[in-house]
Amino acid sequence: MLRAAMTTQYHDTACILSTGDEVTLGQIVDANAAWLADALTSAGVLPVEQATVPDDAEVIGQTIRRLAQRAPLIVMSGGLGPTDADLTRPAMATLAGEELVVDDEAMAALTELLGRRGRVVTDRQARQATRPASARCLPNPFGTAPGLHVRLPAGRTGAPWDADVFCLPGPPRELQPMFRDCVLPSLRLDPALATRTRLLHVLAVPESDVAARLAHLTRRQDVGEAPLLAMTASGGILTLRARIRTSAGESAAAAALDTMEREIRSVLGHHVMPGHAQVGTRGESALASCVVQQLRQSGRSLSVAESCTGGMIGGLVTSISGSSASFVGGVITYSNELKARLLGVSQSDLATHGAVSEPVARAMAIGAIKLTGASDALSVTGIAGPDGGSQVKPVGTVFLGHARREDSGEVRSAVRQCLVTGDRHDVRQRAAISALSMLYFAQAMGFEESRAVRLNWQVGT
Amino acid sequence: MLRAAMTTQYHDTACILSTGDEVTLGQIVDANAAWLADALTSAGVLPVEQATVPDDAEVIGQTIRRLAQRAPLIVMSGGLGPTDADLTRPAMATLAGEELVVDDEAMAALTELLGRRGRVVTDRQARQATRPASARCLPNPFGTAPGLHVRLPAGRTGAPWDADVFCLPGPPRELQPMFRDCVLPSLRLDPALATRTRLLHVLAVPESDVAARLAHLTRRQDVGEAPLLAMTASGGILTLRARIRTSAGESAAAAALDTMEREIRSVLGHHVMPGHAQVGTRGESALASCVVQQLRQSGRSLSVAESCTGGMIGGLVTSISGSSASFVGGVITYSNELKARLLGVSQSDLATHGAVSEPVARAMAIGAIKLTGASDALSVTGIAGPDGGSQVKPVGTVFLGHARREDSGEVRSAVRQCLVTGDRHDVRQRAAISALSMLYFAQAMGFEESRAVRLNWQVGT
Repeated sequence: MLRAAMTTQYHDTACILSTGDEVTLGQIVDANAAWLADALTSAGVLPVEQATVPDDAEVIGQTIRRLAQRAPLIVMSGGLGPTDADLTRPAMATLAGEELVVDDEAMAALTELLGRRGRVVTDRQARQATRPASARCLPNPFGTAPGLHVRLPAGRTGAPWDADVFCLPGPPRELQPMFRDCVLPSLRLDPALATRTRLLHVLAVPESDVAARLAHLTRRQDVGEAPLLAMTASGGILTLRARIRTSAGESAAAAALDTMEREIRSVLGHHVMPGHAQVGTRGESALASCVVQQLRQSGRSLSVAESCTGGMIGGLVTSISGSSASFVGGVITYSNELKARLLGVSQSDLATHGAVSEPVARAMAIGAIKLTGASDALSVTGIAGPDGGSQVKPVGTVFLGHARREDSGEVRSAVRQCLVTGDRHDVRQRAAISALSMLYFAQAMGFEESRAVRLNWQVGT
Repeated sequence: MLRAAMTTQYHDTACILSTGDEVTLGQIVDANAAWLADALTSAGVLPVEQATVPDDAEVIGQTIRRLAQRAPLIVMSGGLGPTDADLTRPAMATLAGEELVVDDEAMAALTELLGRRGRVVTDRQARQATRPASARCLPNPFGTAPGLHVRLPAGRTGAPWDADVFCLPGPPRELQPMFRDCVLPSLRLDPALATRTRLLHVLAVPESDVAARLAHLTRRQDVGEAPLLAMTASGGILTLRARIRTSAGESAAAAALDTMEREIRSVLGHHVMPGHAQVGTRGESALASCVVQQLRQSGRSLSVAESCTGGMIGGLVTSISGSSASFVGGVITYSNELKARLLGVSQSDLATHGAVSEPVARAMAIGAIKLTGASDALSVTGIAGPDGGSQVKPVGTVFLGHARREDSGEVRSAVRQCLVTGDRHDVRQRAAISALSMLYFAQAMGFEESRAVRLNWQVGT
């Protein structure tokens, strides 16, 4: 009894192990690790390390032994198939100190699956229906390779606990259902601990400013019942992540996150996008989604007139399902001729101020409203580089325009000048995000009021 | 002398370390690890392990000590910023047994960068300009956080060699140029071993077909002087990677790759894009770049008429520097009204066949030529989902149009119907790539000849 109590642990923490030369050589991006980490986190298990090793049975064995000392739960992917490079089964048998035996149920399922494809079970295929003697096979309805659940006793790994190792197939379409159906129900979670995560997106405040203004919240808590707050930045959008793990129960966890969110919103105001972000959603997609929702709620319609972004704003907005209710389309006027022909930008403005200028950005936005009949238009004209910059207008010079036709028929317009840092990709992505941010603030605060908001990379006021 | 000879190793192998709670918690997919692995592999360094740990200075330190015993080169990402969760600098100082000191050059660069944005260096920002006393800062032209190169003596890690640790910033736009400019030139490579990689992109052939047709080349070589050939697929574009590591010298390595490339091209013909792909370049960017080059060479000009892709094709083409020489712009006609108003699609076609139909795709492409004056136009209209599908036109139904005005004034047009698999993002991305593929084959083979090429997901002939 005492020994069982010592070696059987709650799955408070976990390690994630990916195997495969295609991952270690960088031939594919390992999206399984992030998916598993997210799924574990959501279930209340804290992932403490991810490791990726090549198709090498000895290295796989060493790594599992090491990870078993880090956490009582290991979820691994890959190496279960029929090829010579699939080494997870023999590695697990060696770790467990057991022979590989044929699993009758797995063999029956494999025979049936291959039979449906008009094929028989070769020796090579049959390897997939083997398991270390004490392990159990996890059925795989979507492929030939069943998973494995192996319990490695403390004595075999040197860990202070028996470790549960779940071996899942590499293809995400097989791994994800197997995790849901076989791993989640097997987790031993401490019923006394509640874990919750909340994500907020922040626009147009530099990361260091946010860090300073939320310093009282981001200070790392070693213990205690306050949520841990972290942030990451991408394309000028910050993601704040609050996470709490508490013995005070689900509702106390939610209340603590509510309190922190209120504090963040009171400090940063409209810079915090409404609602809670979804795990795995990029900031720019969240912004596009928010703008689409604002448009729907206000009954406005959007068009675009894009030069240096070449269609990226349209692409971003239409990535949102349901955007067709508010987004009518627009024009990509990469050449000056099209700026004049389609949007009515005057040749004299183009000649006097150049295509990358305040009057042209304004004329593009106003022209897009007239051309498309939408109530709102965003325009972008800029120098994305690497060529085309000058002393007066260096690479990264971007003018963002927003025109709006009010119900009265009156047309307002606003233009911001930015000096965006980065390479061609950065300048374009950041310009697209900044243009959408302009619209976001105009919708959230009112057109005139939003003029006071300083965008990232904005020059002047 | 003896000790130096023992502790200074060639960088034959490397470990990759990613840090950040956002990665271990699965909030972002770590694309840096794959990029670094690919870049190291291409340079002739074999990545033997990837590890990912949270923002925890002690764990970071332990992990680096462990990885230093696995390989004499560690490339890590993340944790260099100004927040309290950025712990790479203090962790490296502890590992090196040194104090953090201010780096004058890094401080000057930081002051200048922030100054250009009208800001001053706060205490918090200033942390980014510190380094362990014996380390060197790696300049970061694209962000505030410089990188670090720390040489950890064997005595500090228990490794049999001095380990070189390169700490790079997490944002890919900062990490990638810093790797190229600061890490690559610092690698110590065995001059007796030549490593060469060659990448080829393949369009419009299913992965299993390529695998079957190149089976004689993809068989795993345990030893020997033949290149190893691997492939990955993304968005319908395959990337073939041929890699050779040989003691026979640079020219023998290049010759072996030349032989393999000739064989691949003779088997797959125009489906292999011309030239060699760059490491880290996505297939769709390579395709856009190739199309831009074809247009420049043939003196043609391109416009787009995009519905369900909403500007993605324009975005892709204009991501290529120099595209303005051939790409004039186009229209995003998301609403039916704009399809009719801007492109002259007939109301009767819209009513009879629907917006997602062969005649509408054709009229959009022809309309774009007339509207923009370009010689060529690509059009896309489709159902990206998740809503909007029907029995007759399920989600994924996409019509791709290509219109061309010949020098004689004659206008040709071609339309392909596809049933693209995947979610909204997949359908849009694959539709954009397929449209560009249509143009690619028309340029490579001639407009009429290219009709025989069957695109991925194409329905009918």
